[in-house]
Amino acid sequence: MQWYVVASILTILTSSQGILTTLSQNNGGYKYDYATVPFLAEVFKLIVSSVLLWRECQSSPPPKMTTEWRIVRLYPIPSIIYLIHNNVQFATLTYVDASTYQIMCNLNIVTTGILFRLLLKRKLSNLQWMAIGLLAIRTTTSQVKGCGDAFCDSLFSSPVQGYMLGLLSACLSALAGVYTEFLMKKNNDSLYWQNIQLYTFGAIFNMARLVLDDFRSGFEKGPWWQRLFNGYDITTWLVVLNLGSTGLSVSWLMKYADNIVKVYSTSMAMLLTMVLSVFLFNFKPTVQLYLGIMICMVSLHMYFAPPSMLVDLPFTTKPQPQNLLEVSVDHSTDS
Amino acid sequence: MQWYVVASILTILTSSQGILTTLSQNNGGYKYDYATVPFLAEVFKLIVSSVLLWRECQSSPPPKMTTEWRIVRLYPIPSIIYLIHNNVQFATLTYVDASTYQIMCNLNIVTTGILFRLLLKRKLSNLQWMAIGLLAIRTTTSQVKGCGDAFCDSLFSSPVQGYMLGLLSACLSALAGVYTEFLMKKNNDSLYWQNIQLYTFGAIFNMARLVLDDFRSGFEKGPWWQRLFNGYDITTWLVVLNLGSTGLSVSWLMKYADNIVKVYSTSMAMLLTMVLSVFLFNFKPTVQLYLGIMICMVSLHMYFAPPSMLVDLPFTTKPQPQNLLEVSVDHSTDS
Repeated sequence: MQWYVVASILTILTSSQGILTTLSQNNGGYKYDYATVPFLAEVFKLIVSSVLLWRECQSSPPPKMTTEWRIVRLYPIPSIIYLIHNNVQFATLTYVDASTYQIMCNLNIVTTGILFRLLLKRKLSNLQWMAIGLLAIRTTTSQVKGCGDAFCDSLFSSPVQGYMLGLLSACLSALAGVYTEFLMKKNNDSLYWQNIQLYTFGAIFNMARLVLDDFRSGFEKGPWWQRLFNGYDITTWLVVLNLGSTGLSVSWLMKYADNIVKVYSTSMAMLLTMVLSVFLFNFKPTVQLYLGIMICMVSLHMYFAPPSMLVDLPFTTKPQPQNLLEVSVDHSTDS
Repeated sequence: MQWYVVASILTILTSSQGILTTLSQNNGGYKYDYATVPFLAEVFKLIVSSVLLWRECQSSPPPKMTTEWRIVRLYPIPSIIYLIHNNVQFATLTYVDASTYQIMCNLNIVTTGILFRLLLKRKLSNLQWMAIGLLAIRTTTSQVKGCGDAFCDSLFSSPVQGYMLGLLSACLSALAGVYTEFLMKKNNDSLYWQNIQLYTFGAIFNMARLVLDDFRSGFEKGPWWQRLFNGYDITTWLVVLNLGSTGLSVSWLMKYADNIVKVYSTSMAMLLTMVLSVFLFNFKPTVQLYLGIMICMVSLHMYFAPPSMLVDLPFTTKPQPQNLLEVSVDHSTDS
């Protein structure tokens, strides 16, 4: 499978996630316990990966599976980083308002680029850095479009701790991504075997969260396993399947493509959501939306197009001697 | 003189033009006849160019000056194009509102690129096209930032004639620029001699406009030469000097640089005006302003930076044999 096919799937999944989550709400609230969704998504990913690994085991050669503790022990790390990230995110929101937070999240595009360079030692050209910067700017622009005076004031008036925590949050989110990529590419184990390890720890961490929630609420709604499917309807299940499929596409990209591809896919998703909202929720398309789409296309092209397509390289402008030869041959047979 | 020095001067002049014009107003209106300003600016440019040409004539070798009618007759053409452009502009504004018009003016960045390619046969790389597109998008973004619902509605609801005329207007404005560049580069005549021809026709056309205005108003305010300096104060004279100097920098750029450099200079001016407004008129800097500046920098860099700085060209990644040689030489003397 080509990476851009999976990247497009990820864009569609990420985009429909927001829309499905909105559709699954009743009068602005959830009828189900939202914390159960990521747990069930982990279970779904675990089942899918197990089936695919089992199928792979039937074929020959059998898939490569490292079971050394030295390797396996690395797999809970992404879950741990996400856990820390969630707490930092929560702390940040006590200092800054939600809109400022959302804008700071775009830093994550830039921090991913930086960690990608520093930790994975991947070299990016100046043009690619500019493309990443442009993508971050574009995303930010579309978020401040509704910036009234009051909101603009609040944007630069949060305590400095808020911005430091926001920066830390962006770094942690990037670190989790970059670390997962490192893990997936570390050896040529079967993707499904790597997934199983990743999602087993993911499921454990999500379950731990459900248990913790139970203790916090003093079991007043009963233990989590009794209310796991409470209030679930078809849309809720679609949210679960969607979240699970998103995760599967991300792992695929981490192994066979990279973090930057993932960043582009999810940024494109924001635009796709806006376009879909125009049709589904009768949102009015704004000029900013059209311009945003154009800037994204420019950034995408700058990052992924081969250099020879973008600039006139010295060797592409030279006349090709082969053609000259052909012409002269034609000429000699003609006379 | 380097082109980027003149380009920076043009940016500063264009930017201060808006600010000076605002300062020269009294209670939102002009105390002087605004149509006299461009006429006096043409006269100013004519005087400066004459003095410089006279100085050039004292030196040896004397400047090259073509006086053939076949060449001289080409010099009124830019003025004629601007005359048609002004009328089309006026017609456009009867169909679309001023904000829509201002946004359509940015098309002029793109049409300049297209005519530059088609008429002057100048080749632009894909990256440079993207840079120009980005500049046009950036400029548009900063203009729709205050777009309320009502305004957004009006943006796409003008009659189709309005958009056709807006497009024509952008093409004419680009054509005038590209034609002037063609004219200035056609032969290696002295810049000042070319200027004198250009501005003589410019002064005549502007004078004709003043006469026409007199006839239209039935001479109720007296003939134009009697009220030429009516209501002029120091700021008004600064507006004239500024407009004149802007024109002189543009001719210089048309001869020694090109239209795209001019487009960048004037687009940068918009940002500089915003930055200056923050200090002079206590405007609040918006996030959009910062982002706009960043997008402009990216576009500028994409257009003007040498390709080898932007992408990793095949020949820059090869190890350099010279260094290897040096190392081996060092090694032999070492042992």
